[in-house]
Amino acid sequence: VLIEVNCETDFVARTDDFQKLVRDLAMQVAGLAPLYVDIDRIPAAELEAKKAALLADNALQAKPENIREKIVDGQLNKWFKEVVLLEQPFRDEDRTVRDLVTEKIATIGENIRVRRFTRYALGEEL
Amino acid sequence: VLIEVNCETDFVARTDDFQKLVRDLAMQVAGLAPLYVDIDRIPAAELEAKKAALLADNALQAKPENIREKIVDGQLNKWFKEVVLLEQPFRDEDRTVRDLVTEKIATIGENIRVRRFTRYALGEEL
Repeated sequence: VLIEVNCETDFVARTDDFQKLVRDLAMQVAGLAPLYVDIDRIPAAELEAKKAALLADNALQAKPENIREKIVDGQLNKWFKEVVLLEQPFRDEDRTVRDLVTEKIATIGENIRVRRFTRYALGEEL
Repeated sequence: VLIEVNCETDFVARTDDFQKLVRDLAMQVAGLAPLYVDIDRIPAAELEAKKAALLADNALQAKPENIREKIVDGQLNKWFKEVVLLEQPFRDEDRTVRDLVTEKIATIGENIRVRRFTRYALGEEL
């Protein structure tokens, strides 16, 4: 796993607290294999395709029209929790990775941004 | 830098010799910022665009037609030595990275393949 996490100063970048955060985030990427840093990084075409697939579902089509969108929204949120790093639960905790980063921003007192990551899996097709 | 280098057995993967090769290759990627592992990994459209740009050059158009292709081939080879990891000179040595890998295959006695790499640069646009 290669991960880029930005803070504002070299001073913070060198602190144990920040470096522990980066390690924790890298372990999260290694273990839970997210595909995107944040929801807005999902390619529009992929998001549309996912939405269309959910809408086409037979069980959904049997529901009243006025609640279908709500159901699909719920299913999309569930999908985000799988593929989006910041929406994933952190370890087996109640908080998300986004919550963890937000807490660190508060305790460290500098903005922190997970910018990108790359994950290689063994035996993965290229 | 994240780099994947494949060999055939776990035994070789754990040797100092192989691990030194992987570190050397990672340093090469860090320092010389290649874009592709090998020539055949350059996207066809990019290779065509590069060729077209070289062919459109005024100085080239002033040369006799029968030698233009040779000149462009030479310029392409020069470009490969910049953007293709295996074609780059290894450090300041006469051998290329491909030569280095080939030598290691001979001394280690197992096939070795540089499969992919990812390089993050500071301040790089996404």
